[in-house]
Amino acid sequence: MTILESLDNIETIKIIKKISKEEFINFEELINNLKNNYVVIPKNVNHKFKKIKAIGKGLSTKINANLGTSKDRVDLKFELKKLKIAVKYGADSVMDLSTAGDIDLIRRKIIEHSPVMVGTVPIYQIAIESVKKFGAIKFIDKSLILEILEKQAADGVDFFTIHCGITLKALDILKKDKRLLNIVSRGGSFIAEWMIYNNKENPFYEYFDDVLKIAKKYDVTLSLGDGLRPGCIFDSTDKSQIAELITLGELTEKCKKEKVQVMIEGPGHMPMNEIEANVLLQKKLCANVPFYVLGPLVIDTAAGYDHIVSAIGGAIAAAAGADFLCYVTPAEHLKLPDINDVKEGVIAAKIAAEAADIVKNNKKIINKNYALDKARRMLDWNTQKKYIIDPYKFSKFRKKYNLSDNETCSMCADLCAIKKLNQFLNEEK
Amino acid sequence: MTILESLDNIETIKIIKKISKEEFINFEELINNLKNNYVVIPKNVNHKFKKIKAIGKGLSTKINANLGTSKDRVDLKFELKKLKIAVKYGADSVMDLSTAGDIDLIRRKIIEHSPVMVGTVPIYQIAIESVKKFGAIKFIDKSLILEILEKQAADGVDFFTIHCGITLKALDILKKDKRLLNIVSRGGSFIAEWMIYNNKENPFYEYFDDVLKIAKKYDVTLSLGDGLRPGCIFDSTDKSQIAELITLGELTEKCKKEKVQVMIEGPGHMPMNEIEANVLLQKKLCANVPFYVLGPLVIDTAAGYDHIVSAIGGAIAAAAGADFLCYVTPAEHLKLPDINDVKEGVIAAKIAAEAADIVKNNKKIINKNYALDKARRMLDWNTQKKYIIDPYKFSKFRKKYNLSDNETCSMCADLCAIKKLNQFLNEEK
Repeated sequence: MTILESLDNIETIKIIKKISKEEFINFEELINNLKNNYVVIPKNVNHKFKKIKAIGKGLSTKINANLGTSKDRVDLKFELKKLKIAVKYGADSVMDLSTAGDIDLIRRKIIEHSPVMVGTVPIYQIAIESVKKFGAIKFIDKSLILEILEKQAADGVDFFTIHCGITLKALDILKKDKRLLNIVSRGGSFIAEWMIYNNKENPFYEYFDDVLKIAKKYDVTLSLGDGLRPGCIFDSTDKSQIAELITLGELTEKCKKEKVQVMIEGPGHMPMNEIEANVLLQKKLCANVPFYVLGPLVIDTAAGYDHIVSAIGGAIAAAAGADFLCYVTPAEHLKLPDINDVKEGVIAAKIAAEAADIVKNNKKIINKNYALDKARRMLDWNTQKKYIIDPYKFSKFRKKYNLSDNETCSMCADLCAIKKLNQFLNEEK
Repeated sequence: MTILESLDNIETIKIIKKISKEEFINFEELINNLKNNYVVIPKNVNHKFKKIKAIGKGLSTKINANLGTSKDRVDLKFELKKLKIAVKYGADSVMDLSTAGDIDLIRRKIIEHSPVMVGTVPIYQIAIESVKKFGAIKFIDKSLILEILEKQAADGVDFFTIHCGITLKALDILKKDKRLLNIVSRGGSFIAEWMIYNNKENPFYEYFDDVLKIAKKYDVTLSLGDGLRPGCIFDSTDKSQIAELITLGELTEKCKKEKVQVMIEGPGHMPMNEIEANVLLQKKLCANVPFYVLGPLVIDTAAGYDHIVSAIGGAIAAAAGADFLCYVTPAEHLKLPDINDVKEGVIAAKIAAEAADIVKNNKKIINKNYALDKARRMLDWNTQKKYIIDPYKFSKFRKKYNLSDNETCSMCADLCAIKKLNQFLNEEK
């Protein structure tokens, strides 16, 4: 039974109560948001894990870290290390995007070791197996698609990205309404390739009912992917992107009808001033289901620092109502992320999420900031450390240079404004 | 003669023509903006330097990097290294905030070596000399203030931060309308200390006409400082801050009357959703003169990563109309920045500035992004490198892991979406 079908089940209630407590949200309100699919709790019936989280309306903004191999680096231990560091710094979710090595084994091991929800993009494995079995992506058939979906769902994957919105019509628009960077979604490009060679409709769109059946069987949350997400700031909010979003909105209704949990994925690359409108569009066109955002990257010229570019876009998106941020690491556009890239990416996404949560009036994050600020006022460094996003770096930085005064730091030393003001205010009393 | 007094002088016209060309702005428009003080060109008559920049309306967003010693680290060579790295990564301006060592020597050496404008906060040296000469900050007198201002101006400082808005009235408001973090501005705290001990009006407010005389003599741009800037997200946009801003607006009129170039400094710490209103307030209350922003930091819990927190706030501020961003480094709140902190801080500020410049429809930045995206489409890595914010990191990252294919990167390897789509589109032709 799926969560949506078992809302009066004791186990389900326990999960929801725990979340409502953690998130300072009223239990009834949370249940109501779940029923309306304003909130999802991605959790496969076959996956037991510690940190079950809800995503959506009235909740803190969640963040996802992408893991996974590519042809240029296949190393299971390395993937598990990345998983560990991502969770340590606050990832609420990870996705296994492996495209090389023993994909089944890597996925199973990540699911086994992960204390947080795990997502995948099944078209990756489908494409790779098709090349292996039949020689090319164009030979993907319905049975291979359903076989892989079933296998991954049975393994315990909590959410699937399904690129079901790139229809023949959308591809037509893409061809006419020229873009600078066409398609930059890997999954989107596989499906486009298949569609162009076969001149047939997107199988994930055509067989969406079959996808729904498998999702329902294992309670896999569907994350409707944006295969046509803009790949540069000049392609954003264009006809192709919005045409796809409309289709995703239609398929959202199908999910809701089948009581399959659903969220929508969003752009991409986009100037700052278009982000709010894009969040509004997603909410209006897709029945207010959770919005899962990649980026948006607000400039294209900072490869090596795209975690910062993404923190700007992600914070604006989340403040405008996006619910779930996919991290972008400093390695984006350049290489597969290593351990440090994962750490930097998670922290940047966490900063964006918390900045937005202040705007969303999230009690948990507001209280944390308040406690930190009180400790900062008292120059109480040990208490500050408790609330800081990276206490390890905090301590390391704090110790650098000679501290002539243990109350202050080496930036201002004895000229610390806070220390001075504390003195006057005490003397004045 | 100051720039504003010599707008028909050949040398001045040469400078303005060069800027108008670099910035894709019409010469007449730029002159007009200068006359109205919508734009400033900080340049002391005694300072010759290469990269003269204008700040304000119709121009790209500029960024400043703070340098300077503190008691815990005094090292001139280290400061000059920081200067070099800041300029290398795109700082349009540096400020020497030294508070320890031979302050005169350090300032003169920075001015001598800097290819960009140099600012200072003279109250730092005034406070330190007062302690040295008279034993305490409370003994600062008018003659010491004017002596140091004159000395620094004669040395060639291009702009002064003057905390002239902390009046007795504003301090009264601060005492009544309690804050979590009182005053966090170092200069602001010196002046507040002096005012509380002497129970007298802020000398920079009282003797503002004398300050103006010196500024005019050397064409020092005045940057009216926000001594009462909020020090945490709970203190933002409060009565103290706005009372000070109103005073700065009044003093702005005095500057304009005397043809002294002027800009206004802004917060501080502030939730994302208050930033736009703060920029609007500054523009309305201060005659649309340039807004020089520190942060705003949109959460308080990320010390060690405040360059990212500041990039979020700075980008939003600049997109809303702020003209000049002061960098914040990863060391903020923890220690004096080192070389790498300076680099990271400048790059984060540059990203924020360029993200905003896209929104400001700045031709130069738009063209750069377009050229990068065209090269990205062609998988032309050498051309991409020309437009990237940190080409050194770009190359280093690009080489990591085995590149099975020189056209792609190790993120997707042969599964690169761009490469695939280029193939289909070519095959389709």
